[in-house]
Amino acid sequence: MIKAIEWIGKENGYLKLLDQTKLPHRISYITCKDIDTVVKAIKTLQVRGAPAIGVAAAYGFYLGARSLKSGNFVKQLENIKTKLISARPTAVNLAWAVNRMSQLTSSRVNEFTSSQLEAIEGQLFREAMQIHKEDIITCEKIGKQGARLIKKGARILTYCNAGILATAGTGTALAVIYQAQKDGKKFKVYASETRPLLQGARLTAWELQQMKVNVTILCDNMIGKLMADGEIDMVILGADRIASNGDAANKIGTYQVALLAHYHKIPFYIASPISTFDYSIKSGKQIPIEFRNENEVTSILGNPVAPKGIKAYNPAFDVTPSRFISGIITEKGIKRYQ
Amino acid sequence: MIKAIEWIGKENGYLKLLDQTKLPHRISYITCKDIDTVVKAIKTLQVRGAPAIGVAAAYGFYLGARSLKSGNFVKQLENIKTKLISARPTAVNLAWAVNRMSQLTSSRVNEFTSSQLEAIEGQLFREAMQIHKEDIITCEKIGKQGARLIKKGARILTYCNAGILATAGTGTALAVIYQAQKDGKKFKVYASETRPLLQGARLTAWELQQMKVNVTILCDNMIGKLMADGEIDMVILGADRIASNGDAANKIGTYQVALLAHYHKIPFYIASPISTFDYSIKSGKQIPIEFRNENEVTSILGNPVAPKGIKAYNPAFDVTPSRFISGIITEKGIKRYQ
Repeated sequence: MIKAIEWIGKENGYLKLLDQTKLPHRISYITCKDIDTVVKAIKTLQVRGAPAIGVAAAYGFYLGARSLKSGNFVKQLENIKTKLISARPTAVNLAWAVNRMSQLTSSRVNEFTSSQLEAIEGQLFREAMQIHKEDIITCEKIGKQGARLIKKGARILTYCNAGILATAGTGTALAVIYQAQKDGKKFKVYASETRPLLQGARLTAWELQQMKVNVTILCDNMIGKLMADGEIDMVILGADRIASNGDAANKIGTYQVALLAHYHKIPFYIASPISTFDYSIKSGKQIPIEFRNENEVTSILGNPVAPKGIKAYNPAFDVTPSRFISGIITEKGIKRYQ
Repeated sequence: MIKAIEWIGKENGYLKLLDQTKLPHRISYITCKDIDTVVKAIKTLQVRGAPAIGVAAAYGFYLGARSLKSGNFVKQLENIKTKLISARPTAVNLAWAVNRMSQLTSSRVNEFTSSQLEAIEGQLFREAMQIHKEDIITCEKIGKQGARLIKKGARILTYCNAGILATAGTGTALAVIYQAQKDGKKFKVYASETRPLLQGARLTAWELQQMKVNVTILCDNMIGKLMADGEIDMVILGADRIASNGDAANKIGTYQVALLAHYHKIPFYIASPISTFDYSIKSGKQIPIEFRNENEVTSILGNPVAPKGIKAYNPAFDVTPSRFISGIITEKGIKRYQ
């Protein structure tokens, strides 16, 4: 199985990320030996998907700490934390992983001796490895929790990429697909392309093809017709942040897929780890939505499609109200708000 | 004003089409001196938009007849008719224009004298010119009928291209926009890009920019968020065929835009000439839907985006039920089914 994220070597090793901006045409990797390379990879979507970002950020925190030599360490660790968390605002797994790393260091005094710093570095490395390992196990568990929802012969719509490429393991939504396949079920997957960055057509289609899953791609504006024609039996996709009331932020366009599924009475499931839940906020209204550069819309993979000088609207996420969500598949079971 | 379609010279002249596959990056024209060039232009979407296809096909019919020299003319004219009508199946204006041309010749005997043929050619040329002229006037009238629906400060969503580039005149949906602008109203237009062939981002954005209309583009999966955020006051777009009960076929994705507008209580208008109505069919279920080559989805403007060998779903149109349509703006008034 391909890996989106890998740690190479021991404590003095490095983080190896599959460069997802180059897929499906080229399989190339990024070597991260410092925090800045990790932050850049997160910002430019070389690594993406809420759980994968969390794992990458944990290693990023360690890499940042590893390079500290002198000065006010607490302040520097605080800077590392801020740098990572502000790389992308919507997915909460990023902040969750960074906070978990940061907690190991927060009660320390300002100035460490070099042997103390070494000990902390060791702890941070082990914590990052632990977060990484937990993510792999979480994916497996989500797969098992969700697979029972998939009926034989089902025609399943998925959106964006919530698979191997979005996690350190087998994915969230796609982990469910892989588990159902392992269980010997036959089904068909529709992967919506997911403009502007085409994670569905580039990434989901590619990994499902690698995993020998029967997959067909379509443009995001074709979902309504497919549903109206009775060609979709269920929807399953990921999430970037889920509020206390079950409202879920996910890739832009998820809201309208959910509304379409609701109207056509098609079950709509989200698959995501518990770390995606943000109990500090009541509803989806409080989730910050990242707006990205207009050129993601005016160009496609670097080729301009619109006239020069045109304005473009480019939110990276939207919020689906919990009333449209049939259930949220987590590693601990299926949560229902209805 | 730019022209999508023009006849150059007199009866012995030629049809000049703006090649819409090259926009917005290149303004180039196709010279049609025979029917095959016209059929190819229709099939490959060098000319597109239901009314423009109708006008082009009328000239195509004339060009076909002009080249006839001997043999069974009735049979040959029948072939011309079939060739044109089968170029694209969904838009009814194509068949409407071709049938109107064909009626001029249908009652004739099998073999014409050369002077009779010359007379028929003259008649056909004048009829094509007449269809062309009528389309320009129809656009103007649609614009005037619809402009009163546009409120000051309105934020209007349009889809695909139903403008200058889709007609011989100022368009259908966009004629309404241009008329409102002429009337001195201030408003803002959102043009959805319209995958797979991006007529919104390439064509609508371009012509609105040329006409100094305030326009912003967005991806088709961003419409739901924009509506949920209260940023859209009305939707206006075109149609390719309207059944007796008011169900309307239009560019793929129109159905889900209509459903989203319906859910968010946003008025949803279609603008199209009377020639788009097909009273021979009861409901939208009887409208044939064209499926186009999968590579329109797997590639974008010639650049592959999906992995090799992937399957793709690619219907060119879908049907919006009349219950989602607030009104159909025609040259004779606004038709309502509710």
